[in-house]
Amino acid sequence: MKRSLESLAREVGGKVIGDGSVVISGLAGIEGAQEGDITFASTERFIPLLKGTKASAAIVPQEITDVSLPLLIVKNPLLAAAKILAAFTRQPYVAGGVSATAWVSPSAKVSKDATIHPFVSIGDEAEIGSRVTIYPFVSIGPQAAIGEDTVIYPHVTIYPRCILGKRVIIHAGTVIGADGFGFVKDGEANVRIPQVGIVEIEDDVEIGANCCLDRATFGKTLVKKGVKFDNLVQIGHNVQIGENSIIVAQVGISGSTKLGKNVTLAGQVGLVDHIEIGDNVMIGAQSGIAKNVPPNQIVLGTPHLPYRQFLKVAAVWSRLPEIRKELDLLRKRVAALEKKKATEKEEE
Amino acid sequence: MKRSLESLAREVGGKVIGDGSVVISGLAGIEGAQEGDITFASTERFIPLLKGTKASAAIVPQEITDVSLPLLIVKNPLLAAAKILAAFTRQPYVAGGVSATAWVSPSAKVSKDATIHPFVSIGDEAEIGSRVTIYPFVSIGPQAAIGEDTVIYPHVTIYPRCILGKRVIIHAGTVIGADGFGFVKDGEANVRIPQVGIVEIEDDVEIGANCCLDRATFGKTLVKKGVKFDNLVQIGHNVQIGENSIIVAQVGISGSTKLGKNVTLAGQVGLVDHIEIGDNVMIGAQSGIAKNVPPNQIVLGTPHLPYRQFLKVAAVWSRLPEIRKELDLLRKRVAALEKKKATEKEEE
Amino acid sequence: MKRSLESLAREVGGKVIGDGSVVISGLAGIEGAQEGDITFASTERFIPLLKGTKASAAIVPQEITDVSLPLLIVKNPLLAAAKILAAFTRQPYVAGGVSATAWVSPSAKVSKDATIHPFVSIGDEAEIGSRVTIYPFVSIGPQAAIGEDTVIYPHVTIYPRCILGKRVIIHAGTVIGADGFGFVKDGEANVRIPQVGIVEIEDDVEIGANCCLDRATFGKTLVKKGVKFDNLVQIGHNVQIGENSIIVAQVGISGSTKLGKNVTLAGQVGLVDHIEIGDNVMIGAQSGIAKNVPPNQIVLGTPHLPYRQFLKVAAVWSRLPEIRKELDLLRKRVAALEKKKATEKEEE
Repeated sequence: MKRSLESLAREVGGKVIGDGSVVISGLAGIEGAQEGDITFASTERFIPLLKGTKASAAIVPQEITDVSLPLLIVKNPLLAAAKILAAFTRQPYVAGGVSATAWVSPSAKVSKDATIHPFVSIGDEAEIGSRVTIYPFVSIGPQAAIGEDTVIYPHVTIYPRCILGKRVIIHAGTVIGADGFGFVKDGEANVRIPQVGIVEIEDDVEIGANCCLDRATFGKTLVKKGVKFDNLVQIGHNVQIGENSIIVAQVGISGSTKLGKNVTLAGQVGLVDHIEIGDNVMIGAQSGIAKNVPPNQIVLGTPHLPYRQFLKVAAVWSRLPEIRKELDLLRKRVAALEKKKATEKEEE
Repeated sequence: MKRSLESLAREVGGKVIGDGSVVISGLAGIEGAQEGDITFASTERFIPLLKGTKASAAIVPQEITDVSLPLLIVKNPLLAAAKILAAFTRQPYVAGGVSATAWVSPSAKVSKDATIHPFVSIGDEAEIGSRVTIYPFVSIGPQAAIGEDTVIYPHVTIYPRCILGKRVIIHAGTVIGADGFGFVKDGEANVRIPQVGIVEIEDDVEIGANCCLDRATFGKTLVKKGVKFDNLVQIGHNVQIGENSIIVAQVGISGSTKLGKNVTLAGQVGLVDHIEIGDNVMIGAQSGIAKNVPPNQIVLGTPHLPYRQFLKVAAVWSRLPEIRKELDLLRKRVAALEKKKATEKEEE
Repeated sequence: MKRSLESLAREVGGKVIGDGSVVISGLAGIEGAQEGDITFASTERFIPLLKGTKASAAIVPQEITDVSLPLLIVKNPLLAAAKILAAFTRQPYVAGGVSATAWVSPSAKVSKDATIHPFVSIGDEAEIGSRVTIYPFVSIGPQAAIGEDTVIYPHVTIYPRCILGKRVIIHAGTVIGADGFGFVKDGEANVRIPQVGIVEIEDDVEIGANCCLDRATFGKTLVKKGVKFDNLVQIGHNVQIGENSIIVAQVGISGSTKLGKNVTLAGQVGLVDHIEIGDNVMIGAQSGIAKNVPPNQIVLGTPHLPYRQFLKVAAVWSRLPEIRKELDLLRKRVAALEKKKATEKEEE
């Protein structure tokens, strides 16, 4: 595919400075770009690097004067780059049908224009929508439903009755709908609480590799529209995650906890069960969250603190041995003062 | 299945208040329950919610007066609910035989009444017990042994020679018996130490999804009866886990560490290698444990502290910047006192 | 296989004390060893235990007098033991060919002496080198390349175009080359940044079970020679890991971060994106690293500190409530002194 800079500008809504007729055939990073590529400086910081690029054009956040490249000026260069890269790399969907080596239950309903790769197992009464792509070694349990245009990579397990929306992407090894971790002590024995609910994933969700989203005890574990998960994330039973939230790698969310919309959890964060995280909350990496977090905040740490306070605490924390020494010294000085005072008294 | 409240009471050992002949056909949460369901209030806290339920009966921990529902009074409502829900959802086992698309070594011994789903691989001399259910894409290595009534979900890997007991449940993607992480430096190179041991899982163990339990260097990594694992747990080589312990999601236990019985490790806890955790110990979420923990304690933090002490430390920790300021102020006040004293001396 | 102690000594470069003609047929731990085995004391600490062993010889770090066993004295007994155990357990490679139940694209190039187990899927134009062993349920994507003598355990997914070197070992369930976690906000929506790069794994790398190594946005995520990964490790897009580094279980490395050679990351460590870790750095368990770490250091904690300083800080940290009390007490004493001073003044 080849596009003029002008036509790309129309697509992403930017302004061209220089030759808009230059022909672009791909997008690459500043260093890796070749002739014919467009590159991008996501922030001002990267603008100086543009001098060394071999790219034929650049997406930038502001007008710049000392570069001879044709420029595409946009508010958010990274967003424009993402859209242009998607345009260049998008493959038209070609229905592949059902591989002869797949196992599909006679009672499953598989759309005629789905693509079912070799060694896929589709259970009784499962439903596979139009233009769904299912890669090798995917197990779709009985009565599960997969929405249109969804892509499921190898080794994903969808347990029975779970529901996936449209345009969902699930990377390799992820497990949707295993039993929630519910046990109750009977003396020392652990008696299992049957997990009879499901997992429901709404439209446009993307889930990384080797994640685990457990089915609900009753009702459903719910991931709302547009949520994006990194890899190795753990989602407990009956969790709810609000629209467009971002869950970074190795996060763990315990049972029945609810996230608002547009929440960001950085890597390795842990949330206890039965708490609520408000809309637009950002939680810093490795934080351990043990109680509700109201909306519109940035918090960090275990226990968590407002972001700025955490930085102050951490700065003092690393100087604790000095504080200890200062305190000891001060105690001695006070004792000396007290002793003098006592001596004076005696002298009087 | 339909049961009278009376008969359920006999099964779980409780006392009926109200109409014991009411017919129950299922169990559900307070909000989701419909007519014909029994619901439950696991603690007093949930009793007020019973007024709004559509359930036909409720399991409660004590007699209550302002609800018109027939009641089943038991010591532990959650335990009774678990048992009743299991009774209602239990499916009778029906032997499914070996799928035509499974690959079973001619030297493997598979019980006639096992159920082997499509795309299962069973290695040489492996043994599969009675009423075992093996879901698609499970790999059973050579000489592995699977006990009666065990259920293995999709994509589980059992490495060669590992042993699973009876009534074990293993969720999707879990790996039993990969090589322990054993390397020794030869200059900068890492020389691998062959891992010739196995993993042994005793009866009634349940393991979540995408866990890793490594085989021993020599001997065995051992999980004793009744232990329950959540998802994404890491168990190093030669670890031993005592009866009925609970290992929550994303915990990591390093090599040769031993847990007593009835231990609870909360989410994302990490244990170093070669330590011992006593019976009945509870370790709070995200704790990093670097030395032995004696029995019958609740500990938390990195380094870990007794639970109550941790809470006190954490409370002061978050106020470190104020302590820093107070200390500075105090130092000035002491300096002022010292100066006055010196001035007085000079004046004398 | 049987070997004289003398011949083993020649192989690993040690000195025999006692009967060098004793015949050895295996290696085992001190307690598990039987007649015919050689055992080892990795450090002085284990030497006293040798008295109770049934082994026929022992590898030790120094001459000892009170044991009647023939001894093999070497600088590093663990290294010698690893080499001897490898010699005893090494299986000669026997080419198994391609299983009739594997699916191999007609355009893939599979070496004649590779071993492809049942239910393997090999995509278009993939290349599989000599003596490669691929276990059941492995998915090799289109145009991926697997070097000679590499072993891939069950359920591994190699995404398209990824490259594995020679003698690489990948344990079950690991995912190589899933999309990097790249999204950019468009209002509240998350727009995906296509991930068009690859993962390249150099020679002699070993990767544990259920790890995730993401493909690069552009260019490649790179793991250099001799690196060893434990289980459940997360490697973000465009990460680089230097030669012979050791990455312990449940570590997470965020995008574009670079590790030097011979780095050790202990369990559950987290690294933010775009930082550099110098050669020979060791990072203690559960540390959260938010900025560059220069070479040749041991650091620990969140924020990280030099190892010794961390221990001092942690010691004071656990005594924070006492510090709080001491500070309060001191404040009262200073106030009392100030009051006396004021009273004296008034009296004057």
